[in-house]
Amino acid sequence: MAKNFTSREDNYSQWYNELVIKADLAENSAVRGCMVIKPYGYSIWENMQSALDKMFKDTGHTNAYFPLFIPKSFLSREADHVEGFAKECAVVTHYRLKSDPDGKGVIVDPEAKLEEELIVRPTSETIIWDTYKNWIQSYRDLPLLINQWANVVRWEMRTRLFLRTAEFLWQEGHTAHSTEEEAMEEAIRMLNVYSDFAENFMALPVVKGIKTASERFAGAVETFCIEGLMQDGRALQAGTSHFLGQNFAKAFDVKFLNKNNEQEYVWATSWGVSTRLIGALIMTHSDDHGLVLPPKLAPIQVAIIPIFRNEEELEKINEKILPIIAQLKKLNISVKYDDRDTQKPGWKFNEYEFKGVPVRLAIGPRDLDSNSIEVARRDLLTKEIVPLDNITEHIEKLLVDIQNTLYKKALDYRTENTVDVYTWEEFVAQIEKGGFVNAHWDGTDETEEKIKQETKATIRCIPLNNKLENGKCVLTGKPSKQRVLFARAY
Amino acid sequence: MAKNFTSREDNYSQWYNELVIKADLAENSAVRGCMVIKPYGYSIWENMQSALDKMFKDTGHTNAYFPLFIPKSFLSREADHVEGFAKECAVVTHYRLKSDPDGKGVIVDPEAKLEEELIVRPTSETIIWDTYKNWIQSYRDLPLLINQWANVVRWEMRTRLFLRTAEFLWQEGHTAHSTEEEAMEEAIRMLNVYSDFAENFMALPVVKGIKTASERFAGAVETFCIEGLMQDGRALQAGTSHFLGQNFAKAFDVKFLNKNNEQEYVWATSWGVSTRLIGALIMTHSDDHGLVLPPKLAPIQVAIIPIFRNEEELEKINEKILPIIAQLKKLNISVKYDDRDTQKPGWKFNEYEFKGVPVRLAIGPRDLDSNSIEVARRDLLTKEIVPLDNITEHIEKLLVDIQNTLYKKALDYRTENTVDVYTWEEFVAQIEKGGFVNAHWDGTDETEEKIKQETKATIRCIPLNNKLENGKCVLTGKPSKQRVLFARAY
Repeated sequence: MAKNFTSREDNYSQWYNELVIKADLAENSAVRGCMVIKPYGYSIWENMQSALDKMFKDTGHTNAYFPLFIPKSFLSREADHVEGFAKECAVVTHYRLKSDPDGKGVIVDPEAKLEEELIVRPTSETIIWDTYKNWIQSYRDLPLLINQWANVVRWEMRTRLFLRTAEFLWQEGHTAHSTEEEAMEEAIRMLNVYSDFAENFMALPVVKGIKTASERFAGAVETFCIEGLMQDGRALQAGTSHFLGQNFAKAFDVKFLNKNNEQEYVWATSWGVSTRLIGALIMTHSDDHGLVLPPKLAPIQVAIIPIFRNEEELEKINEKILPIIAQLKKLNISVKYDDRDTQKPGWKFNEYEFKGVPVRLAIGPRDLDSNSIEVARRDLLTKEIVPLDNITEHIEKLLVDIQNTLYKKALDYRTENTVDVYTWEEFVAQIEKGGFVNAHWDGTDETEEKIKQETKATIRCIPLNNKLENGKCVLTGKPSKQRVLFARAY
Repeated sequence: MAKNFTSREDNYSQWYNELVIKADLAENSAVRGCMVIKPYGYSIWENMQSALDKMFKDTGHTNAYFPLFIPKSFLSREADHVEGFAKECAVVTHYRLKSDPDGKGVIVDPEAKLEEELIVRPTSETIIWDTYKNWIQSYRDLPLLINQWANVVRWEMRTRLFLRTAEFLWQEGHTAHSTEEEAMEEAIRMLNVYSDFAENFMALPVVKGIKTASERFAGAVETFCIEGLMQDGRALQAGTSHFLGQNFAKAFDVKFLNKNNEQEYVWATSWGVSTRLIGALIMTHSDDHGLVLPPKLAPIQVAIIPIFRNEEELEKINEKILPIIAQLKKLNISVKYDDRDTQKPGWKFNEYEFKGVPVRLAIGPRDLDSNSIEVARRDLLTKEIVPLDNITEHIEKLLVDIQNTLYKKALDYRTENTVDVYTWEEFVAQIEKGGFVNAHWDGTDETEEKIKQETKATIRCIPLNNKLENGKCVLTGKPSKQRVLFARAY
């Protein structure tokens, strides 16, 4: 176990915070609530971006870029939207500083006050629908399938690295359609893209579902989400896809001429995932030895450490290992060959273990003699000696196996920690234990709110394709037609 | 020539503005000075990013992300820096809105005033060097080679799409070194990366040089730049690389323990290019028929237009053309097959011509009979009939030829428009004509400023490896050791 590193059992929250810092993923900046994403953490984000961007393009979307600032009045156009987003936002009121006449430094120039304040975007529906107004005249201009990679700001009071920060990085898709059906299909399509990404790249099993009215995006008709279960039994919303109906089209007067030559309001969706996914990734796989990364998102998939006492020994190792590295790179496997003589092998072992590198190879003079190499896998913390012949194939398969093993482990954990409950006592006890709790709910906001107040559990979602069954609300005993998924959440 | 499209000769500035809009590259947003980069324009930026990012990584750099906001006091730490950047910036003073008690909408909540105002980054030296302070202790932590892709805001009063906008996208490299030599080498290395990119991807010949003191980046010891010459005879600074000396290290107290166990201030560089490059690209190659794009940055390299009167004819064309498209894609050539029946071929020809697609193919029943295809190249506006056998090879070579031809044309233009002058009369006349003017200068700020006042020409740079020759300042007649490059500039 790494030194000075809190175990998950001792204090999960502290374990997380320490891991993010010690694995060089991110740190707090001088600006309250804003993080610095360090190179190693940012590489994970780049890998996520690259996979997602390809999936977006494969489903017909293109990228564009809209302004960072939103005129204050835009936020008020959609009534629910302003309610949800105006509370906590960064407000630009001036456009100039000047030298402080009374001393050193600079002060805000009172003469440079903006006529209308600008809000740093907390999300871009308003500025984008104001733009779409000019882009959409006829059904021939539809659908409009656009995504944006951007930074956004929400002035959170309590922040945690990756999970909740004032500024974060994300992508936001904003699409426009000529029919309700098509917009709804798009919202579901992107939910499926997110769940594919979570399961196949992050090795994070997710439940796809619909949010209740109280958890819905401010301005949406329906919010779909993917929910993951973290190791400490708390749920984490990993992505959302919103069917916005005609709400923003009405707020920004975006109409199109349909095939029957009639003016109609445009139908909309929006969908997003953020750097929060890195928090989800950490809390799904990592352990008391540090980070554990699924191979498909690991910045370094294979670390190779030569064991040598002098230059001559290193040269012999190089002779054998450099062609193998070249082969691995040909297979698009990212390799770090750490032949520094300023650090000892043991230090390097710890380093790559802590940073979650999926496969670690070590090779020294004795291995050369036996034409073999030591292969360690990060997920199981096991080691084996493998013949050097066919080592690249072995590693290629191993990476696939690690990816699958991580997913299976996370799925097993979720299965074990998803429970149906029937009574209020069971409910309370189960929520206290952690995990997903399936329970009947009478469908009212009041009950949902009361359950939250009493147990801190929220309805994470009504799972898609949910089994219908008659039952009684776990709190009120009123009739219910289906169970919904409860949990305490990040 | 495209309809309702101003020619370059009639009004170059209007031609540019119309081109940006009509080619769907960008438009002004509802926020003064902030642009919307439309999907087609953004694809060009993505291609630029992808090429540059690879070049940065190949030279050992990694990406990271630093906060959007900079505490006001940080700007004042470096005296020149605050002078250069504090004047025009977006200032965040509040972090909450609230419902307007007197009516509809929202107002800034006066209770939510920040203790210290935050500046939306105009550039990130200050926040980054405040961070580096904690990352650098010893020479072993150096060099630190980090790049950031980000948005920045400079409150420009007069804006033009891509060329000068309040918000723009860019990359900013920020490196830290243990010696002056190494930092200087890095600044030059990145200048060379920029010039390689400009010449090999943008087909834009550039002059590498050093800025005079008055044109230097605020906070730099030396600013290197690449300067291109636009079609209208004005220069455009396409990228800068700064040797920052120890200025920011001193301002933020960033020291390291050197190999002799002494504390020393860290040496720094920073370097950046922005979406301004898209403006440079347009003004280097485009013509009165619209955009002209070099193949290496074109979102669509080949547009293919089938000529058909009915479904049966289209099917026959498809039979022949779809395998060719597959082959082209295998060669990583981006192809748009426009088989829509909602637009006529002539409309499509105009569309792809205006959008600068390098190669356009047209194929109809008669071409099928003769086993040939019409190939049009955008740069020369020429057409030829080419046999369908080996068509993919032909196109592959053609794309290379177009890239080279564009570069050569731009280089010839620059050569023809770079003139040595000896007298003030010649200087004034030549500056009025446009182009780069090589002239002797006495090396003083006063002369530089006076020349600017009289002619609107600035010293673009002192070219690297400049020929030394004794001469007399074109304005004052005082002795000079070398010519410097003057031009009116964007």
